[in-house]
Amino acid sequence: MNPSELTPERARALFRAGLETPTSGFAPGYAQANLIALPREAAFDFLLFAQRNPKPCPILDVTEPGEVSASVFGGDLRTDLPAYRVYRHGELTEERTDVTDLWRDDLVAFLIGCSFTFETPLLEAGVPVRHIEAGTNVAMYRTNRECRPAGRFRGPLVVSMRPIPADRVADAVRVTSRYPAVHGAPVHVGDPAGLGIADLSRPDYGDPVEVGEGEIPVFWACGVTPQAAVTASAPEFAIGHAPGHMAVTDVRDSFYQVP
Amino acid sequence: MNPSELTPERARALFRAGLETPTSGFAPGYAQANLIALPREAAFDFLLFAQRNPKPCPILDVTEPGEVSASVFGGDLRTDLPAYRVYRHGELTEERTDVTDLWRDDLVAFLIGCSFTFETPLLEAGVPVRHIEAGTNVAMYRTNRECRPAGRFRGPLVVSMRPIPADRVADAVRVTSRYPAVHGAPVHVGDPAGLGIADLSRPDYGDPVEVGEGEIPVFWACGVTPQAAVTASAPEFAIGHAPGHMAVTDVRDSFYQVP
Repeated sequence: MNPSELTPERARALFRAGLETPTSGFAPGYAQANLIALPREAAFDFLLFAQRNPKPCPILDVTEPGEVSASVFGGDLRTDLPAYRVYRHGELTEERTDVTDLWRDDLVAFLIGCSFTFETPLLEAGVPVRHIEAGTNVAMYRTNRECRPAGRFRGPLVVSMRPIPADRVADAVRVTSRYPAVHGAPVHVGDPAGLGIADLSRPDYGDPVEVGEGEIPVFWACGVTPQAAVTASAPEFAIGHAPGHMAVTDVRDSFYQVP
Repeated sequence: MNPSELTPERARALFRAGLETPTSGFAPGYAQANLIALPREAAFDFLLFAQRNPKPCPILDVTEPGEVSASVFGGDLRTDLPAYRVYRHGELTEERTDVTDLWRDDLVAFLIGCSFTFETPLLEAGVPVRHIEAGTNVAMYRTNRECRPAGRFRGPLVVSMRPIPADRVADAVRVTSRYPAVHGAPVHVGDPAGLGIADLSRPDYGDPVEVGEGEIPVFWACGVTPQAAVTASAPEFAIGHAPGHMAVTDVRDSFYQVP
């Protein structure tokens, strides 16, 4: 099984069968998405939160209450991601590979753009993506930047970090800025302290990655931000993906490219 | 009083004092916005409708329930537009210049991008805008294109039309495509029948405008679409602007320009 040769459907079948792995590098050329499913009564507040924070929360699709697939995702949202996190009153209570028995009729699922989507164009532009080379999960951090609140939802901006060679930073900006629906251009380049990140070697989510000689850490807004908002805001119930373990959609990366 | 020399604040003061006029050409350089205010219990469905139909319904701002101003609009949403339309169960029941006594604590106001915003850049690019020259309201039409429904909301796409000289159509596309937050590039160029518009001289909203020799009708998605959705979907209560009688915001046009 070579992740780079899988179709979205085949990748989802493997995850459904129990393969538990970060999805970076899987089914290249197809967009990946973050999941956050919330009860209908919290859905307006969250949709407004996403609307007000489009860099971390670019909405790709929203289901009707109770639906288990989406127009961009032909699979089953309850089984076809590699892993899930379940929150009750803001507490992370479980991590699982199947949430079929927890899916409620009143759950509205939000699919939110993921920066894994622009990694294929980055690689095609010759910009190295270290965590794919290393076969690890991307490093993600909670920052000291607060999102704009909406109704009951508030919380910090979460970012993903990729070390980029100094002479490729401009290319990384140029390429990713063409994909605003999957977080777009970086929110910060360089000193992690500017985002309140004390230690790059201790990410809040995912795996650490070394910043090599001649490289600079580059930070993009991250679709784990909704889960940080769930932690901060404590809605009664929520289901998210396990960070880095995304929904592989049926939509081509190029669909989300702007000129 | 020269509309082209007013600040947003001064324009709003005139409207508050009773001036009832279409706002095209007012306070040039500042973005204008469509208004639709709906009860909180319908707000999620509408926000999702807007999310699913970003060409006609690009959201600039959403208020908390009961608020009467917005981050993009320093005035009073109940008095500072030149005219309003009031809907009860989908029926247009009143047109007024002040809705203070009708504003409810549970109303959520959505401010939606308006194509008047890109008319200044059009004029600066030498593309004529006929209805400004004529001092009339822009011509708007319901089309045979259905929006993507969401919850209780469905309805047709509404468009605005500007006649453009054949050799300036490319410029009109190029300039307006830089402003996706205020409807962006045209949805249709040429034959009105392609949108199901039988007679250009009979717009559904606003004033007719002649398509001259050597000109072609160019159609942009229009922020009256939410009011057509109110008509089609019959929420219990809604307040919109009178078509063409917009909220003049405090935000510069250039804020909404993308590269």
